[in-house]
Amino acid sequence: MLRSFSQMEQHILKGEGKKRVALAGAHDLDALSSLVDARRKGIVEAILIGREEKILELLNQLDEDPNGYQIIPQSEDALCARTACQLVRDGQADIPMKGMIQTAAFMRAILDKSNGFVPERGLLSQATLLELPEEERMMIISDCAVNIAPEYPDKVKILQNAVFLAHRLGIGCPKAAVVAPVEVINPVMQSTIDAAMLSKANERGQIQGCIVDGPLGLDNAVSIQAAKHKGISSPVAGVADILLMPDLCAGNIFTKSLTYFAKLPTAGALLGASIPVIMTSRTDSPEDKYHSILTAVILSQASC
Amino acid sequence: MLRSFSQMEQHILKGEGKKRVALAGAHDLDALSSLVDARRKGIVEAILIGREEKILELLNQLDEDPNGYQIIPQSEDALCARTACQLVRDGQADIPMKGMIQTAAFMRAILDKSNGFVPERGLLSQATLLELPEEERMMIISDCAVNIAPEYPDKVKILQNAVFLAHRLGIGCPKAAVVAPVEVINPVMQSTIDAAMLSKANERGQIQGCIVDGPLGLDNAVSIQAAKHKGISSPVAGVADILLMPDLCAGNIFTKSLTYFAKLPTAGALLGASIPVIMTSRTDSPEDKYHSILTAVILSQASC
Repeated sequence: MLRSFSQMEQHILKGEGKKRVALAGAHDLDALSSLVDARRKGIVEAILIGREEKILELLNQLDEDPNGYQIIPQSEDALCARTACQLVRDGQADIPMKGMIQTAAFMRAILDKSNGFVPERGLLSQATLLELPEEERMMIISDCAVNIAPEYPDKVKILQNAVFLAHRLGIGCPKAAVVAPVEVINPVMQSTIDAAMLSKANERGQIQGCIVDGPLGLDNAVSIQAAKHKGISSPVAGVADILLMPDLCAGNIFTKSLTYFAKLPTAGALLGASIPVIMTSRTDSPEDKYHSILTAVILSQASC
Repeated sequence: MLRSFSQMEQHILKGEGKKRVALAGAHDLDALSSLVDARRKGIVEAILIGREEKILELLNQLDEDPNGYQIIPQSEDALCARTACQLVRDGQADIPMKGMIQTAAFMRAILDKSNGFVPERGLLSQATLLELPEEERMMIISDCAVNIAPEYPDKVKILQNAVFLAHRLGIGCPKAAVVAPVEVINPVMQSTIDAAMLSKANERGQIQGCIVDGPLGLDNAVSIQAAKHKGISSPVAGVADILLMPDLCAGNIFTKSLTYFAKLPTAGALLGASIPVIMTSRTDSPEDKYHSILTAVILSQASC
């Protein structure tokens, strides 16, 4: 089981060989420098798609020899994204990455049916991978960025996507807490209703590969003491590998609080496609951008 | 301006004289010990309402002389709560506090119209008061515990209640960030619509005593760097005194993350009544319980 970003890095370095990242819109210091960093560490090979002159200028600025890179000149956003996805579809690259192009153009290429990256009944979701250094383990929080107000069927898919990531980290049967403001059923709080449904669906074998319990308050989900105080007996309380958020407001604000207040190391992952995808945010720290690249590489490998 | 719980404590000690707390259901080690602690520090006088024998036993266990306390024997939950509120109404106590009685019974007494604690068009709301030791200042987050899915009119009241607390802390014109998952208007995200309305209502003078801006992501609300990265120009970004949460899910999970992940000192306050009210939770740390008592005492004083 991989218990930290540094263990993920080690696992990749002694693993299957380098994955090839196709950066769409590589004429961007921000995205390019994080990919150059990962390449220097021996984690990936890089294919750079975008405005060639600017890319060469930026590589020079980063003190990087352009001969180590395949560069595909392209100036249009939509074509940058399409080229990156085609390279992955054709087996010439493993992971598309978003650089300086519109998110909409990038997502259109990922969702393009002719690429077949997203299964018919699948759902794209975002997950934040959190390292808990004190507990020497990882935690997955979803969805913090993509699905605004998921109803029950989409929550099932978001959970299954998170379970997939947990399995790739070597967590055989992850424990998932369905988080709500309270740990009791309250018919006017949809999050507690959804939590009851998800827990029971898991008990009945409708959701597999994990142990689900909820509703749990965040305190009960992450602290055994807090759960004991409230008299809660749960196989998940205090030891959750996955925190399923009630909606985007909660997930987004929670995950930002981990970065801005708790200052914990995180990564972002886009799940639900048959390929991993790297989308870092301009406001991510360089470390967290690197963590996101590590996470995509782990997702592109066979299970560990 | 009071910039920490320790400054609040100092301010109280050299202030108006001790406030009198009426503990409803004092036969509870948890609530009693936090009140005894505050009394030992010279912050409050205490009136203990509940099962006398048990109260005396607990005081003995805490090594506390019962002669320092007014004890009012009472065994029924509803009557404990009613007595505490009557004492406050009649000027014999300043602050009711919830001990070992049902929350519903306690709230019924607070809301009882004959006491006149909650104005006709007022709204009870909860706020978390957060100390940011690195920035040497306090931040108010609301609502994290009472209002489940407030619509615009209730958000106005929650904001006004938070502004009242800010004023009591000596923040003359608090800056309020209306937090949402994104900082742009998205017509399918109600939180961004409400944020636009609150900001404009503030500009038009419909909400006074504060500067309101939103929607802001949590990152932009608390970090000037993050706001700059996103190109946001706002008088509130990075320096928010108040974070208005989109709903209870987000507020509750966020505030718990501050305790369990960021390990920052917090207090809870019940706002919107004409009197401060102390309601600590069994899972609060002893420090945070003490902070909640400090906050109620500050609320019961003239503005500082």
